[in-house]
Amino acid sequence: MRKIILFIAMSVDGYIAGSDDNLAFLQMVERPNEDYGYADHLQNIDTIIWGRRTFEKILRIEQKVPHPDKKIFVVSKSLTGKKEHAEYHPDVVNLVHFLQNQPGKDIYCDGGAQIVTELLRHNLIDRMIISIIPHLLGDGIRLFKEGNLEQGLVFKRSITYPSGLVQVWYDVKKE
Amino acid sequence: MRKIILFIAMSVDGYIAGSDDNLAFLQMVERPNEDYGYADHLQNIDTIIWGRRTFEKILRIEQKVPHPDKKIFVVSKSLTGKKEHAEYHPDVVNLVHFLQNQPGKDIYCDGGAQIVTELLRHNLIDRMIISIIPHLLGDGIRLFKEGNLEQGLVFKRSITYPSGLVQVWYDVKKE
Repeated sequence: MRKIILFIAMSVDGYIAGSDDNLAFLQMVERPNEDYGYADHLQNIDTIIWGRRTFEKILRIEQKVPHPDKKIFVVSKSLTGKKEHAEYHPDVVNLVHFLQNQPGKDIYCDGGAQIVTELLRHNLIDRMIISIIPHLLGDGIRLFKEGNLEQGLVFKRSITYPSGLVQVWYDVKKE
Repeated sequence: MRKIILFIAMSVDGYIAGSDDNLAFLQMVERPNEDYGYADHLQNIDTIIWGRRTFEKILRIEQKVPHPDKKIFVVSKSLTGKKEHAEYHPDVVNLVHFLQNQPGKDIYCDGGAQIVTELLRHNLIDRMIISIIPHLLGDGIRLFKEGNLEQGLVFKRSITYPSGLVQVWYDVKKE
C-alpha cells in the first residue's frame, strides 16, 4: 500500500514555526548544495497534502502552486474546487483513505501541525522523517500537540549533517 | 567555569514522562551492558540538582538517596534541611549562581521539567544531552514548556544506538 510520509523540520524543543509563524530558524541550516534529502524524497512520492494555512504560506512565498508534476490536495473546511493544479478537500482522514485505495507512489504530508495531529490521531502516518534544527524556539507552533495517541515507532535511520541538523527516520507501528 | 549539564531522555514528541508520570517507555531501550553514556557522564560531575517531585520519584524507586559520592540539591519551596546527604534549596536560580562560584566539577541537572524551564528562562543551562526514545507518548509531561526564551544552540555530536535511541548533544549559546 502507498505510504503516508511526513517530511518536516522542527526545533529541538519541538516547534515547526515560531510565534507569528516565523520560519527564520530554518535559514540557520541552509547550506549550498545541501537539500537534506528533499529531492530524493520528492522522487518517491506523487501526491502532496497540505493544510490550508500551510498552503497559503507556500503560495505567498512561491507566488504559484509548486510541484506541477504532483497531485496536490489542500485540506480546507470552507474552500472547494481547485487552485491551479491543487484540489481542495474538506477532510484529511477521508482523503487519505481514498488515496490509499488508488494506485500510485507514496504520499507526502507536509503539515501543518493540525493535519499532522489529525493523521496521528487516526494512526494514518506510516513514516516520519524529522529534521531536528539545532535551535530552541521557546514558543510557537508545535509539531506534536497534546492529547494524541501513544504510538510505537520503529527507528529506521539517522543522518547527521555538518550544519548540525540531525534527521531521524521512524516507521509508525500499525496495531 | 563549571558547566550546568542537562542529561535527560524524551520521546520523539517531546515528553519526559507520560500521563500519571509513567516512565514505562524508557524500558523499550533497556539493553544489557548499555547505559547510553550515563557512567561517563557521572564521572564528569560532582553535583546533582533535582526538582522535589523528581527526587521523590527516585526515592520511591531506590529506597534511599543515590550517589553517596555526589553533592545533591533538591529544589523545594516548602522543604528545608537535609534528607540523608541531599540538601533542600528553595530556588534553583540562586542555587546555580552559588554553585557556579564554588570550585568543582560540572553540575548535573536531572529534571524535572519545571527545573529545566526555570534554568532555560534564565539561560543557565550550558549543555543539553538529550536521548530521543523512538516512541510517541502522545501526552504527558513535556521537557520544553511553552513560553520559553528563543536560544541558539551549538550542535556538538549525535550518537545513534542499536536500540534506535538517538542521543544529541548541544551547547547553549550565551549572549
